[in-house]
Amino acid sequence: MTTLEGISGPGRLAEPGEGISAQELALAARNHGMPLEALRYDLTPVGLHYLLIHYDIPEIAAPDWRLRLDGLFTQPLELDLAALRALPARTARVTMECAGNGRAGLDPRPISQPWLVEAVGTAEWTGVPLKTLIESAGIDPAAVELVFTGADHGVERGVEQDYQRSLPLDVAMGEEVLLAYAMNGRPLPPQHGFPVRLVVPGWYGMAHVKWLVGITAVAEPFAGFQQAVAYRLRQDTQEPGEPVTRIAPRALLIPPGFPDFMSRTRVVRPGTVRLRGRAWSGREPVASVHVSVDNGHTWAPADLEPPGEHRWAWRAWAFRWEATPGEHVLMARAITTGGQMQPERQIWNRGGFANNAAQRVEVLCTP
Amino acid sequence: MTTLEGISGPGRLAEPGEGISAQELALAARNHGMPLEALRYDLTPVGLHYLLIHYDIPEIAAPDWRLRLDGLFTQPLELDLAALRALPARTARVTMECAGNGRAGLDPRPISQPWLVEAVGTAEWTGVPLKTLIESAGIDPAAVELVFTGADHGVERGVEQDYQRSLPLDVAMGEEVLLAYAMNGRPLPPQHGFPVRLVVPGWYGMAHVKWLVGITAVAEPFAGFQQAVAYRLRQDTQEPGEPVTRIAPRALLIPPGFPDFMSRTRVVRPGTVRLRGRAWSGREPVASVHVSVDNGHTWAPADLEPPGEHRWAWRAWAFRWEATPGEHVLMARAITTGGQMQPERQIWNRGGFANNAAQRVEVLCTP
Repeated sequence: MTTLEGISGPGRLAEPGEGISAQELALAARNHGMPLEALRYDLTPVGLHYLLIHYDIPEIAAPDWRLRLDGLFTQPLELDLAALRALPARTARVTMECAGNGRAGLDPRPISQPWLVEAVGTAEWTGVPLKTLIESAGIDPAAVELVFTGADHGVERGVEQDYQRSLPLDVAMGEEVLLAYAMNGRPLPPQHGFPVRLVVPGWYGMAHVKWLVGITAVAEPFAGFQQAVAYRLRQDTQEPGEPVTRIAPRALLIPPGFPDFMSRTRVVRPGTVRLRGRAWSGREPVASVHVSVDNGHTWAPADLEPPGEHRWAWRAWAFRWEATPGEHVLMARAITTGGQMQPERQIWNRGGFANNAAQRVEVLCTP
Repeated sequence: MTTLEGISGPGRLAEPGEGISAQELALAARNHGMPLEALRYDLTPVGLHYLLIHYDIPEIAAPDWRLRLDGLFTQPLELDLAALRALPARTARVTMECAGNGRAGLDPRPISQPWLVEAVGTAEWTGVPLKTLIESAGIDPAAVELVFTGADHGVERGVEQDYQRSLPLDVAMGEEVLLAYAMNGRPLPPQHGFPVRLVVPGWYGMAHVKWLVGITAVAEPFAGFQQAVAYRLRQDTQEPGEPVTRIAPRALLIPPGFPDFMSRTRVVRPGTVRLRGRAWSGREPVASVHVSVDNGHTWAPADLEPPGEHRWAWRAWAFRWEATPGEHVLMARAITTGGQMQPERQIWNRGGFANNAAQRVEVLCTP
């Protein structure tokens, strides 16, 4: 067999009770979440930030890198890294989350990267506002979207492709959208898009195109694989569905006490346990975080850090829990200013996207 | 239920055909391997080096950290980070591999961290030779081993513990054993043992105790959990078994071409494909690497980088392959100076350790 279809089949759902497959494990071994104790850091140290790579990390030498702006620009541009770095820069603190976070908790489980709840991280990204380059190149009034092309190349569901995603022009022109060349004050690591990636604060990770090499202005909405086929909210693959865009609200707590190696169940001693966590939303801001220490039967508000200068970064919260001997299930959920609340149970969709069902942490309190 | 036994059971083997369990997935989501394309780097960038954390990453502020040397030392010591950093330092380039690497390829599969083949990485570690401190504290002639205690705390198979491992005194006195405070020229990241970890070149990762806080000289071989119960080579849990120590020889190749997202099968075009990889051994040195492009039916030698100044780091190799349309299985295996060769099939043991069966990479060559 010499056709791509033989090695790159359509998506499928796991059978009832089907364990994680060898293919899902191969993705989980490469990509990784953020160990939840790292919620303690305002800025996630490099190597703890979640990582999802569709194909391979491309090998790009900085001197060879070029970014091309073409299509419906008045004056197509080509920049090298020195030219990009010479432009005025901004730094933004951004919480990024994979659109597939929570997928492995869905039933039935869509077979893909099997995230639990850890596919998140917060970094300070430094780069040039995309708007600066768009204005420099001059946009043709016929343009409606920009298509961003990464240097990573692969096959997905039978389609050979460079990774490509688009943004509507009004989103792309936002002050906060960056062509980032630094993460936490250092050059991007290879796995986070060296030398340059797109950063779109508030959006799920699929929009933040890594290893960016091209920006094309187009007159029609982009119909490429990652835009029109993948990353859609739908019940069935036949539906066109709605695009995955901004990050749904979520709160996560640092599992308290210490863990069992294999079950990851937590152990605490009786008495006051200070629960801590983070909450974020790429949509309307988080207004409050509520915590349950009885598996969702009752809820009480946590102390939430007030909104500060970092609109797109997570905020810390804390909650005092009086632990008593026995088994407990802790939960946390974020509620937005408009009253959007994380669901306690899954809201299922075929691709396994944006599953922000409230986290559950099993804890044993020993006498 | 309020006992640890209820949340921390004995080890088990997967049933025939049993998929990866939720508990194994939870470990795979936290810990991670090195994406194999990162074999291209002499030094693994931080965040791509493999990572295995038994419990949680401890929260240690550098000013609070102390290292205590006690037990059978003539003059027990306590050092802070400034005192350690003031001592003469060395830098060593070391390939580190998890003892469980390859576990998920075993049949039946021991249920634990489900590594495929990626649990490896190479870093330059800077720190103070352990020998310097031992000589400073003065060792009692009755001491036979040093026990190293990490700050990470958890439960494992029903046993609550700080992570602890020992080394025989002659190994601990080796010039190359370091108390490392820097990785690739920067302070250790939290997940790699900040502020100080042990580095034991040539040994599997379990010996390189992270978040090191104590060194105790003892008169009897250490019988703690990670020494006498875990990390043993045996067929049955009732046997005492042999300790896991030095890294078995292994060669890995960078999967050529580009991947399918879900199956990770590789795609190449017909013609010359330059296969590249790395080989290493914590035992006798690698003498040659052999490659098969026909699923192990025939083998031919690769070009192997000669031994250099970095005895404990991987060495690069390359091999010219003339790809023809169709499906292929590529393999590579290392052979040591004494003729030890990686097996083509598993050598099974109950804990799933040191499985250095030769890697298999499925490739589709399209016309």
